[in-house]
Amino acid sequence: MAKMVLLPVLLSFLLLPFASLALTQDFCVADLSCSDTPAGYPCKAGATAGDFAYHGLAAAGNTTNIIKAAVTPAFVGQFPGVNGLGISAARLDIAVGGVVPIHTHPAGSELLFVTQGTVAAGFISSGANTVYTKTLYAGDIMVFPQGLLHYQYNAGTGPAVALVAFSSPNPGLQITDFALFANNLPSAVVEKVTFLDDAQVKKLKSVLGGSG
Amino acid sequence: MAKMVLLPVLLSFLLLPFASLALTQDFCVADLSCSDTPAGYPCKAGATAGDFAYHGLAAAGNTTNIIKAAVTPAFVGQFPGVNGLGISAARLDIAVGGVVPIHTHPAGSELLFVTQGTVAAGFISSGANTVYTKTLYAGDIMVFPQGLLHYQYNAGTGPAVALVAFSSPNPGLQITDFALFANNLPSAVVEKVTFLDDAQVKKLKSVLGGSG
Amino acid sequence: MAKMVLLPVLLSFLLLPFASLALTQDFCVADLSCSDTPAGYPCKAGATAGDFAYHGLAAAGNTTNIIKAAVTPAFVGQFPGVNGLGISAARLDIAVGGVVPIHTHPAGSELLFVTQGTVAAGFISSGANTVYTKTLYAGDIMVFPQGLLHYQYNAGTGPAVALVAFSSPNPGLQITDFALFANNLPSAVVEKVTFLDDAQVKKLKSVLGGSG
Amino acid sequence: MAKMVLLPVLLSFLLLPFASLALTQDFCVADLSCSDTPAGYPCKAGATAGDFAYHGLAAAGNTTNIIKAAVTPAFVGQFPGVNGLGISAARLDIAVGGVVPIHTHPAGSELLFVTQGTVAAGFISSGANTVYTKTLYAGDIMVFPQGLLHYQYNAGTGPAVALVAFSSPNPGLQITDFALFANNLPSAVVEKVTFLDDAQVKKLKSVLGGSG
Amino acid sequence: MAKMVLLPVLLSFLLLPFASLALTQDFCVADLSCSDTPAGYPCKAGATAGDFAYHGLAAAGNTTNIIKAAVTPAFVGQFPGVNGLGISAARLDIAVGGVVPIHTHPAGSELLFVTQGTVAAGFISSGANTVYTKTLYAGDIMVFPQGLLHYQYNAGTGPAVALVAFSSPNPGLQITDFALFANNLPSAVVEKVTFLDDAQVKKLKSVLGGSG
Amino acid sequence: MAKMVLLPVLLSFLLLPFASLALTQDFCVADLSCSDTPAGYPCKAGATAGDFAYHGLAAAGNTTNIIKAAVTPAFVGQFPGVNGLGISAARLDIAVGGVVPIHTHPAGSELLFVTQGTVAAGFISSGANTVYTKTLYAGDIMVFPQGLLHYQYNAGTGPAVALVAFSSPNPGLQITDFALFANNLPSAVVEKVTFLDDAQVKKLKSVLGGSG
Repeated sequence: MAKMVLLPVLLSFLLLPFASLALTQDFCVADLSCSDTPAGYPCKAGATAGDFAYHGLAAAGNTTNIIKAAVTPAFVGQFPGVNGLGISAARLDIAVGGVVPIHTHPAGSELLFVTQGTVAAGFISSGANTVYTKTLYAGDIMVFPQGLLHYQYNAGTGPAVALVAFSSPNPGLQITDFALFANNLPSAVVEKVTFLDDAQVKKLKSVLGGSG
Repeated sequence: MAKMVLLPVLLSFLLLPFASLALTQDFCVADLSCSDTPAGYPCKAGATAGDFAYHGLAAAGNTTNIIKAAVTPAFVGQFPGVNGLGISAARLDIAVGGVVPIHTHPAGSELLFVTQGTVAAGFISSGANTVYTKTLYAGDIMVFPQGLLHYQYNAGTGPAVALVAFSSPNPGLQITDFALFANNLPSAVVEKVTFLDDAQVKKLKSVLGGSG
Repeated sequence: MAKMVLLPVLLSFLLLPFASLALTQDFCVADLSCSDTPAGYPCKAGATAGDFAYHGLAAAGNTTNIIKAAVTPAFVGQFPGVNGLGISAARLDIAVGGVVPIHTHPAGSELLFVTQGTVAAGFISSGANTVYTKTLYAGDIMVFPQGLLHYQYNAGTGPAVALVAFSSPNPGLQITDFALFANNLPSAVVEKVTFLDDAQVKKLKSVLGGSG
Repeated sequence: MAKMVLLPVLLSFLLLPFASLALTQDFCVADLSCSDTPAGYPCKAGATAGDFAYHGLAAAGNTTNIIKAAVTPAFVGQFPGVNGLGISAARLDIAVGGVVPIHTHPAGSELLFVTQGTVAAGFISSGANTVYTKTLYAGDIMVFPQGLLHYQYNAGTGPAVALVAFSSPNPGLQITDFALFANNLPSAVVEKVTFLDDAQVKKLKSVLGGSG
Repeated sequence: MAKMVLLPVLLSFLLLPFASLALTQDFCVADLSCSDTPAGYPCKAGATAGDFAYHGLAAAGNTTNIIKAAVTPAFVGQFPGVNGLGISAARLDIAVGGVVPIHTHPAGSELLFVTQGTVAAGFISSGANTVYTKTLYAGDIMVFPQGLLHYQYNAGTGPAVALVAFSSPNPGLQITDFALFANNLPSAVVEKVTFLDDAQVKKLKSVLGGSG
Repeated sequence: MAKMVLLPVLLSFLLLPFASLALTQDFCVADLSCSDTPAGYPCKAGATAGDFAYHGLAAAGNTTNIIKAAVTPAFVGQFPGVNGLGISAARLDIAVGGVVPIHTHPAGSELLFVTQGTVAAGFISSGANTVYTKTLYAGDIMVFPQGLLHYQYNAGTGPAVALVAFSSPNPGLQITDFALFANNLPSAVVEKVTFLDDAQVKKLKSVLGGSG
């Protein structure tokens, strides 16, 4: 009875937040068709539930390659729902003998959940160049601080799988070998700034598709 | 030969970063014996590799309870290595029929990786109170924006497991039912601020151990 | 005399900052016609003094509704001048017997200035679910930490008024009752994630205009 | 009946968050006896409701002084509950003819609520030195962007009162006249860096208690 | 030989990051033709090496003006490559007898490298109005905290040059004299908010091109 | 005359900010004897002007070493005044033929001012591994985005000198060669994660003082 009376009054109240708070920004699904900004992409209009879920990490990546491993990202470019939320994800598949070569994420820390197999992982501090290594089994987690060189490789006898989260929607991935050998940075410069031998540089440039 | 000559010179160079950069802060493992600060705990001295790995999410949580679910956190309090790194983790175990009741994380967004079973999840926007729901299967991920009410429940016929990452080392967890019914907030106040009936409030206070 | 001589030289100097610093960003009045970004709206061109002042909180909100209260926001959507400045405002009018129901601001802390009447206010911590309550009189202020459930109600015999500031231009407002009952989230799901009785949920869904 | 059965199970679940989330940082009331850090003070142990409320702005400040105005701060130093929450407050009392002299807040934007009287306020942009001024009446609000010179004075025929919020727990207050004339910065230096006349500088140094 | 075999496999792996990480945001060169946002300008497409270098500080600024000094900025407006990178630069040329008048940078701290001559510099704290001054010689550096009043003048017998870095791509520059006297803020208001004499205000307004 | 009258009144006003704002945090000179926190060191008491200036970059670093270069930092460890201010500095001395080997700063962007000689510099983007190189002459500046691999070498016929600023008081410095070869990371692991030949790894480990 009271309900009947209350309803009309309440509904007018109910409309208030709809009208006045319509611009509330709980989230900001990336509109990848716009230019990025230093804080992330402009928000797309009309987000739906599908924008906040992602299926792309469900299948194993293809590890039939020289590193016998695959990194499948769910960064803002693949999963626009994480834009502005300070987090993103990836999946690592590492076949027996496989390796995720030494690399950094310039813009985020990484949290690794091993879900299958055995993973040897490590990172190296700046300054003192101290090495921090662990052998991780299914269920173990490990954190890699932002910007530091780190690696993971399969240390077991079967395939290894890990899920990874990052403290940024767009952490970046700079694989040292690719940065040095998979572009047109002249061999002489690579040698000068790394002290690697000329033959070594030219060999890896050739393998990784670099020139110069 | 050249090596012999270079070594002494290089080593003195090598010592430079040790000496001058000894204070470099690549990470800041929490010293939980100190007072927290708004940016996290003071750093402990002498970090080791073990500080950056955590085994506490390897085992299933105990779901023999009323919600038939367990939330096992790896926040800074459990995993001091994440201090200052902008990320942390948790594990959800949800038995058949189980539920992680509606809750918020006041200080972080959440990224959920379903690793086993079927999970129904949803969150509600502020302002327009729009509901965003998804049924997630093993391999699916979903993101829950910071501070918004959300829930997960087992929507399958077997146990469900999920790994969770947060965009903060200390995201907090405010379960709405616990906040309303598991403390000494007087029933009259709860009723006034929620419009719930007196009998309903007293029933849940009794079940959840609240008083007043 | 000296002035005459100095003037031309100085003016050419004077023009320098106009030309070279013309892009200085002291503020960024929101252009609400553009897409929002994670850091706020793009800046409108040609700000005027009027963009930095707002009259919308001068009049009392209409409290002739079921909660006998009104929340009048001056968030970036209403007051574009606060865009990017880390602050916004609102006005609370609470008639005798009125209440601002339990709610959170997902993206900001709140500072409340009671300017008239008597207000009972409280918030609940996460984790320990500790209740922090105060009765506030005209002149008192209280702070509510970001993302935590809190409420205010009139605890006096006359109307109460409060001015509120937030640590964000767009703090959001998630009223728990509206999130649970004022949308199409199915009653069965609400019951599952809140432990509320079916009759209670259906009653409030009916009152608050929800469906399902 | 069911309640009796459920209770023990639930309580053990209930204890989980108490134990495992005891370190959750919803807030961080300043322990002013500790050294400050760049992010604010270390958190005191054992916060109570009283830490989150403050009575010090309830009474008018003493305006019997040369500026006929009083600024009563509720920054972290006076109101430790705001530590780490990104917000603080102050009260301005401006008698007839009174003025809050031109000043900046180096670390925060300001939001002004006029609650009584008439206030003329303005700020000046950097770069183009554009002046933005408004006459504000009771109920009006105005925002002053971080770090920019601004002022308020009583433009009415009775006392004016304003409540002020800042986007920082510790915004700072640098009154230009005090910075120039109320310390031991030598007059010759003041004159050199301001182009003010020697007599003017010495006069204000004398009035404001400066030396040199 | 092995190389031949490895190459095709590797190249397909090589293409993966190109495709999937193409949106990685290592940097965000400003597109100054777009509207600014609170976090900086939208990113231009197609950055080149030239975007990250700037030649505009190579030549001395023209010090033939009343302050016998020149401030040449390399903020985001002049050097779009710093957008989003948290840093920018400027060059100070100060002829004998010259001065950079007292000013603030509302949005950044300043680090000064003296490269030639002798510079007297100082800043004034807020609150206590304490003066911190140093005489700096070639090779010395000094830091000026964000938002605080500071100055530099030539304290030597030859020209002085300094390079300056800021903790923001767009720190702003508010020269107190220009803010007070080089615009249309009425003399009566200036006098009211500074306690300066009418003659002094009018004299400086005249010299600096102000009106009112 | 008026001055005499005003003085006592003003002084009592003058004392107000001293008393009530004594905790204002304009700056936070590091107390290096305390534990660091994620936001920097606790503030030392009693800062003096000397804390904000630093002389350690005035003299050339010793380039008589294998890289024919010296990096002299003025990070928070050497220059505690920059703590919390978002900026720090360094000096590069590069003899003819010298090089600053490829490295990253995990926690800051770098701005380089060439003050003498000719410097060839470059950085490599993540994802696409694009190379951005410039030859810089005295007066040129270049910015290196946070966390990306970069190098500098002397490209001229005389010594080169550069001043460097960072967007962090503690940016870190991770020299890739040192991270790989100057510690006890086993050669087999280095080879696995870099694809370098065993002989190459062992040679550089020997030269750089590594073991394993």
